[in-house]
Amino acid sequence: MPVNLAAPDPASLLPIAGLRLGIASAGIKKPGRRDLTLIELGPGSQVAGVFTQNRFCAAPVTLCRQHLAHGGIRALVINTGNANAGTGEEGLARAHRTCEAVAGLIGCAAENVLPFSTGVILEPLPIDRILAALPAAQADLAPDRWSEAAHAIMTTDIVAKGASRQARVGSATVTVTGIAKGSGMIHPNMATMLGFVATDAALAPALMQRLVKEVADVSFNCVTVDGDTSTNDSFILIATGQAGNAEIGDAAGADYAALKDALSEVAIELAQAMARDGEGATKFITVTVEGGRDRSECKQIAYAIARSPLVKTAFFASDPNLGRILAAIGYAGVADLDVNALKVYLGDVLVAENGGRAASYSEAQGAAVMAQSEITVRVVLHRGSVNATVWTCDFSYDYVKINAEYRT
Amino acid sequence: MPVNLAAPDPASLLPIAGLRLGIASAGIKKPGRRDLTLIELGPGSQVAGVFTQNRFCAAPVTLCRQHLAHGGIRALVINTGNANAGTGEEGLARAHRTCEAVAGLIGCAAENVLPFSTGVILEPLPIDRILAALPAAQADLAPDRWSEAAHAIMTTDIVAKGASRQARVGSATVTVTGIAKGSGMIHPNMATMLGFVATDAALAPALMQRLVKEVADVSFNCVTVDGDTSTNDSFILIATGQAGNAEIGDAAGADYAALKDALSEVAIELAQAMARDGEGATKFITVTVEGGRDRSECKQIAYAIARSPLVKTAFFASDPNLGRILAAIGYAGVADLDVNALKVYLGDVLVAENGGRAASYSEAQGAAVMAQSEITVRVVLHRGSVNATVWTCDFSYDYVKINAEYRT
Repeated sequence: MPVNLAAPDPASLLPIAGLRLGIASAGIKKPGRRDLTLIELGPGSQVAGVFTQNRFCAAPVTLCRQHLAHGGIRALVINTGNANAGTGEEGLARAHRTCEAVAGLIGCAAENVLPFSTGVILEPLPIDRILAALPAAQADLAPDRWSEAAHAIMTTDIVAKGASRQARVGSATVTVTGIAKGSGMIHPNMATMLGFVATDAALAPALMQRLVKEVADVSFNCVTVDGDTSTNDSFILIATGQAGNAEIGDAAGADYAALKDALSEVAIELAQAMARDGEGATKFITVTVEGGRDRSECKQIAYAIARSPLVKTAFFASDPNLGRILAAIGYAGVADLDVNALKVYLGDVLVAENGGRAASYSEAQGAAVMAQSEITVRVVLHRGSVNATVWTCDFSYDYVKINAEYRT
Repeated sequence: MPVNLAAPDPASLLPIAGLRLGIASAGIKKPGRRDLTLIELGPGSQVAGVFTQNRFCAAPVTLCRQHLAHGGIRALVINTGNANAGTGEEGLARAHRTCEAVAGLIGCAAENVLPFSTGVILEPLPIDRILAALPAAQADLAPDRWSEAAHAIMTTDIVAKGASRQARVGSATVTVTGIAKGSGMIHPNMATMLGFVATDAALAPALMQRLVKEVADVSFNCVTVDGDTSTNDSFILIATGQAGNAEIGDAAGADYAALKDALSEVAIELAQAMARDGEGATKFITVTVEGGRDRSECKQIAYAIARSPLVKTAFFASDPNLGRILAAIGYAGVADLDVNALKVYLGDVLVAENGGRAASYSEAQGAAVMAQSEITVRVVLHRGSVNATVWTCDFSYDYVKINAEYRT
């Protein structure tokens, strides 16, 4: 069950001026499921994205990269139930036909449409059903459909994920709203499965790619469920430019910082929601590594802990078998790490120092922290001044059950 | 349950001239458990080892490295139930006291003794109970105790692991016998938990380190259960020199090759036994990557498949959800991999080519292979002439159960 996570109140997801969403049922995997989402953008909207590093990237990811280079994006189309990955040339052709159909409906070129797919890999995209349902998605277009869209992009997610923020940028109030899906095959080698964050702020096009990367690095790139990097990971930032703020043109200025903070807050909430809703999750785990020489070594150690099946099953069992955390630190691959200099905390409890168990530590202290539904592991390296944080969940029977039965 | 694996017939584990084993009950974790093993070597025996790369290596691993540099090893002492890892200075002191006690019993220096521990990390070694049981282990010393030793070094292993071979070296027959333990926290960043392989062959001391590394690289360094590299991994090669062969002095000669083959066969059988007895295993999986540019990229891809929780749960479910294998190949980190050029086979069935599902593939073919208890995944990269093979097991409810309840 998701850990301290509820679907957002639909009214809490604020509309973004210049953006409409429409949902329809294409019956891609199951009849009647609302599984097709169309997002239409007003003229002048800026769009940027970061995508999976997986070499077997999905056909829609390939097209997204091409179309973003072309610019002038006017629509996004998203299906769940089929990833259109591992589908070769025919997969690319079907993704392109989807773009053409959307373009015909809303009046733009196929290159102005970004396609997204999520679901089973290695099966042909049921293109006819998608094309047949697109007119219904268009008819449904409205600014207040964020909650419905958050539901329509889910796969094994139990809870829909969405968040909004508002921020003062210059003399204007800008709004940020985002949705995401992701629960398994979650490990950032960019982001997670699908994340869409939109704002009405006006921003110089030259800053978009920098901004999407900076936001991804503090949010979707800090979460892992199972260490599997998906073929379809995509994180998209949309700026419709209709908030009335003076266009942000300087990444060093206060307006850029204010917008980035609001975007990051939304993206972090969505990224954490993926770990809270991680397949089979019963606990939400934050791993923080402090005092490193650089961010890379901090993340390396944080991920070694957050990925370890042994650490994650111990959290599931509420068993303070904390030697497993030490073992993960030790094999993280930081070659000159001095294990006698570091300290390990579970919550506020000092667990290990001087290469062994802390003299002050008692099993009762560890068990008390382990009994909580949200747990922080803190590793202090004492070799520098850089920190990194990673979010994950525990590893339960239900992870195996969900993934053993995924296609049935 | 272990996959097609039974404990070796005690009579099949051949004595090695110049080597005696004794087992006793120290009550380290559970009263009455036979958990302490002493191995005594005749004068002139050669010993070499390879050890975990984990920075949090156990105290006995640190002492083993020091004592092997010193040379003249006369005894090995192995306890199960406690890893003596994450135990700081006091852990080193206790491992040293164990060596001193063994040295006093058999008449050598503490530096001539190698200590080994396996079990829970981060708990103090119960040194008094070990010291009290050592005389009983010495009294038990005999050449035909390999099977008892194989049982005495187990932790979560269900089946004891041992194997013997004989080979012709020059005009003499040499014997090789090995035992190993390992079932979880298994991922080679050298070897697995504990492996001991002994031969009566005579071999130049200068060749020992090369031989142990070559044997480890084709055996223990090719197995993974959960991707967790232990703090205690040790693989030890012993040569007592009493077979009567002319001392092997040339690594390029036929005698070296014959001995290496016999050692490798024993080590491979033991390494495969760890995957067959992997925690919660219901299937034994061989992943072979062929046609790579170098062994490193082949292993990288093989391990990405063999470590993926999604791939392993699909094997558990006998579900040919083969897109997960493609995803793992794609995120393995081979940056310039052409996914359209490679082929993926499940058993003899061609599954994927040209970046997608093979036209000839049918779900029924995949399901038939998946129903077997031993399955081979074969990836042909078509970019070079190098191969690598990795062995693993599936990922079941019982893995979670075993590791959630390990300390209870």
